[in-house]
Amino acid sequence: MARRKRLELDERRTQLLALGRSLFSERSYDDVSIDEIASLAGISKGLLYHYFKSKRQFYVATVREAAEELTASTVPDAELPPRDQVIQGVNAYLSFVEANASAYTSLMHGGIGVDREVHGIVEGVRERFAALIVDRMGPSGVTPAQRILVRGWVGMVEASSLEWLRQGNVTREELTRVLLGALAQTLALGATVRKAE
Amino acid sequence: MARRKRLELDERRTQLLALGRSLFSERSYDDVSIDEIASLAGISKGLLYHYFKSKRQFYVATVREAAEELTASTVPDAELPPRDQVIQGVNAYLSFVEANASAYTSLMHGGIGVDREVHGIVEGVRERFAALIVDRMGPSGVTPAQRILVRGWVGMVEASSLEWLRQGNVTREELTRVLLGALAQTLALGATVRKAE
Repeated sequence: MARRKRLELDERRTQLLALGRSLFSERSYDDVSIDEIASLAGISKGLLYHYFKSKRQFYVATVREAAEELTASTVPDAELPPRDQVIQGVNAYLSFVEANASAYTSLMHGGIGVDREVHGIVEGVRERFAALIVDRMGPSGVTPAQRILVRGWVGMVEASSLEWLRQGNVTREELTRVLLGALAQTLALGATVRKAE
Repeated sequence: MARRKRLELDERRTQLLALGRSLFSERSYDDVSIDEIASLAGISKGLLYHYFKSKRQFYVATVREAAEELTASTVPDAELPPRDQVIQGVNAYLSFVEANASAYTSLMHGGIGVDREVHGIVEGVRERFAALIVDRMGPSGVTPAQRILVRGWVGMVEASSLEWLRQGNVTREELTRVLLGALAQTLALGATVRKAE
């Protein structure tokens, strides 16, 4: 009985987060009220506050959930060769971007009223994606310049994704191919950097 | 007499913006009060409100001024060959990053309490920097894929800059060289993209 109750609570929480992701992606934070969220979810304001203490906390929870979904989706099959894992990771990243265009744009623009918590979540996505790339490069590791450039390349993936959503005239496969090529060439360039004095 | 008054007003405004850039770069928005700004500037609160109607407006003005300085600094000497203009632009961008580390980091992290206005200012910096690159590529222009990748490369410059400031173990000259190499190779890759159906 307690277990069934728990499942119902979790399911409702998931539904609320999906609703929040959609609302906050399409409209501004200030434009979405707690009353409207409760009404659209078909529950009382009191019950909504049972799940999330404030509108801000609800918003941060939707951001965190989207970020976790993105990061989880990019974890590749560990049995593939490292190079194929990187391909799979980039392809999965762009698939998430395609399937969650508004939410992704909102997330990467810091949504509305970015604060340290939201910024930290977005930084976490970047760090874990960069770590995935560095990890698949093998035991020899990366140089300091390459570490800078891997973070740079993650920035390239983000900025390209946002422009790709705006333009929409290049396939995901082609963008994946080009971004992987850019990664390989950038890392090769990074290997030529002399250490600073 | 009126002209001298005007000069004094402009000068004070410039001083206030420099103070604001420094304060908002080092501390959080909420942590900086109008009282403290006025006190540090040695003027009354009333006079501060004469220049800026609210703390938020003062903050946005400091962001806009830093963004304009960054963009102006990257405009290259129009008499140089296009390739050298790009080199000069990237080098100037990284010089600004070096000289304004806190302000740049704060700007690119959306500072505190990002709203549409601040986001629009940061997007403006990106667009103008991308336009500079596209413009110097000559009359044949860029393909849709290359347009996506130029924006992606601007994202690479930003993300690399932020990590470079954190690590601090690569020279500006080396980072400029590698970022320019990445641009050339990424654009070459972009030229191989088939048009989407």
